[in-house]
Amino acid sequence: MSDLPKAVRINEEGPREGFQIEKGPITTAQKIALIDSLSQTGLQQIQTVSFVPAKNVPGMADADDVVKGFTRKPGVAYTGLWLNEMGLQRAIATGKLDIKGTLSLCASEKFLLRNQKRTLKENLEAQHSIVKMYQANNVPVVRAGLMAAFGCNFEGDIPIPQVLDTLQQMLDVAQQYELDLQFFSLADTMAWATPLSIRRVVGAVRDRFPDMAISLHLHDTRGMGIANAYAGLEMGVSIYDAAVGGLGGCPFASHRGAAGNVCTEDLVFMCHEMGIETGIDLDKLIESAQLAEEIVGHPLPGTVMKGGSLARMREKIALAA
Amino acid sequence: MSDLPKAVRINEEGPREGFQIEKGPITTAQKIALIDSLSQTGLQQIQTVSFVPAKNVPGMADADDVVKGFTRKPGVAYTGLWLNEMGLQRAIATGKLDIKGTLSLCASEKFLLRNQKRTLKENLEAQHSIVKMYQANNVPVVRAGLMAAFGCNFEGDIPIPQVLDTLQQMLDVAQQYELDLQFFSLADTMAWATPLSIRRVVGAVRDRFPDMAISLHLHDTRGMGIANAYAGLEMGVSIYDAAVGGLGGCPFASHRGAAGNVCTEDLVFMCHEMGIETGIDLDKLIESAQLAEEIVGHPLPGTVMKGGSLARMREKIALAA
Repeated sequence: MSDLPKAVRINEEGPREGFQIEKGPITTAQKIALIDSLSQTGLQQIQTVSFVPAKNVPGMADADDVVKGFTRKPGVAYTGLWLNEMGLQRAIATGKLDIKGTLSLCASEKFLLRNQKRTLKENLEAQHSIVKMYQANNVPVVRAGLMAAFGCNFEGDIPIPQVLDTLQQMLDVAQQYELDLQFFSLADTMAWATPLSIRRVVGAVRDRFPDMAISLHLHDTRGMGIANAYAGLEMGVSIYDAAVGGLGGCPFASHRGAAGNVCTEDLVFMCHEMGIETGIDLDKLIESAQLAEEIVGHPLPGTVMKGGSLARMREKIALAA
Repeated sequence: MSDLPKAVRINEEGPREGFQIEKGPITTAQKIALIDSLSQTGLQQIQTVSFVPAKNVPGMADADDVVKGFTRKPGVAYTGLWLNEMGLQRAIATGKLDIKGTLSLCASEKFLLRNQKRTLKENLEAQHSIVKMYQANNVPVVRAGLMAAFGCNFEGDIPIPQVLDTLQQMLDVAQQYELDLQFFSLADTMAWATPLSIRRVVGAVRDRFPDMAISLHLHDTRGMGIANAYAGLEMGVSIYDAAVGGLGGCPFASHRGAAGNVCTEDLVFMCHEMGIETGIDLDKLIESAQLAEEIVGHPLPGTVMKGGSLARMREKIALAA
């Protein structure tokens, strides 16, 4: 309990996570409106779009126009996703995004084979050309992401040594290319984590790599999202990905209809009520969540947007007294 | 972490919580089918109905017939709720319920005034006549419930000394009437709790009353249900109320549309994955949750019923290997 951080940083991924999976149609103007709304909440980082071929992800066909359309707020890092050099070039060409590179490995070979048609070894080799691509474009590589760090629908439970070895492989690549990696992002891609496994994996990673910061990317597919975030807080983790309203979902067939990312405003609510700063105005964030729900046209899984903030409740009580 | 209990007992409240709040119509046969389905999961305690006037709670108009209709499974304690002697007599008359008495106080006077039109003092005095009612009917009083133990929409945050004093008042009543109270049930009636306040309140109650067991009744109105249950587990709490599929809701106006009780199968999933026994077959419980969803005719908030159990996933992986 004494390890709770004083402040956390939240990387808002709702626009990218949501618009790539929602059936829509969602207009470019609506996407821009949500990003601009999120910019007013105090969030310091917003992942806006994914630069992928429209034939693969129709909801991202207008990615360039979305980025062109939003209004930059000073102090907010707007980011994008890409899977290859063509995507990276599109992101750079917008001139409005915070361009940082990521090394990306996976703790599960079976997932990698299904998802990217690569073995673990081939994927590790691919990181070399990815680093070269970033260096050729003067893009700093600051983040090392590990998918399926807590378990995999195709491989099952992931032994902790496998997680540690894979993270070490990324540090080896980083050393070879003199990258200034700042943190490991551990992703619970298929929602296998529980608070106990969060504690165990984060503890093992911290013990082995005490100089690296850790961030968590948590899915709520089995309802553990907020509990897992709490376990992360207990372990001192201070960086979280989250999606406003719980936007997004799970693209894996066996999870159709299941919840997606951990919900930003629920996470912010928990942090504030436990005395952890986020820099975010929860009531404004709830307004963004309500806008997101209006845009997608169906109920989103977020709960605080329906239950209301306690800060607002305390104000009402004080007024009534 | 070392305080995680080896096993927990779950008191299933879905039928009572759900059918009293669902708009319906839900037939008596459907209510019976859900109870009978829950009986097959390994649950040891199921709260079936509430004996209240039909004009107040139309969904409970058929309470006596529901109890008459379900098939008792040996080893399962079927319980009911009542608010006065007439309700208690109806429950006793069924001849099928496990009849136990509860002392019930509230940590918030403002909530009590709104909800029961009584002051804290009047409510304490009422416990004496309630105990006499139980003793006249040879009903053991084993449980002391505290509503609004973590905060109140009308009073705000509840200081811990107020919680401790109110629990002491119940122990005083218990001593006066030589009751064999077995546990305190702390209810987060209006969803003010966070994992941190669970730790603080449970810790304070345990320190002050080390001989009393503690159970938690958690609402998920602000998405903290499972995280709060995890914090309870960390504090060694081993008795939880929960509702299959997350049945139920929040009757308070400001929470309309918000989630209700913590979801049984999500809680069972978390326990099993962390090595805590529940005696429950999670896959059967998921079937009950799906039946509940079919009966109420709208999506329920439970997530594991959509995401699936990992035990089932591991079997599939083993078969494919």
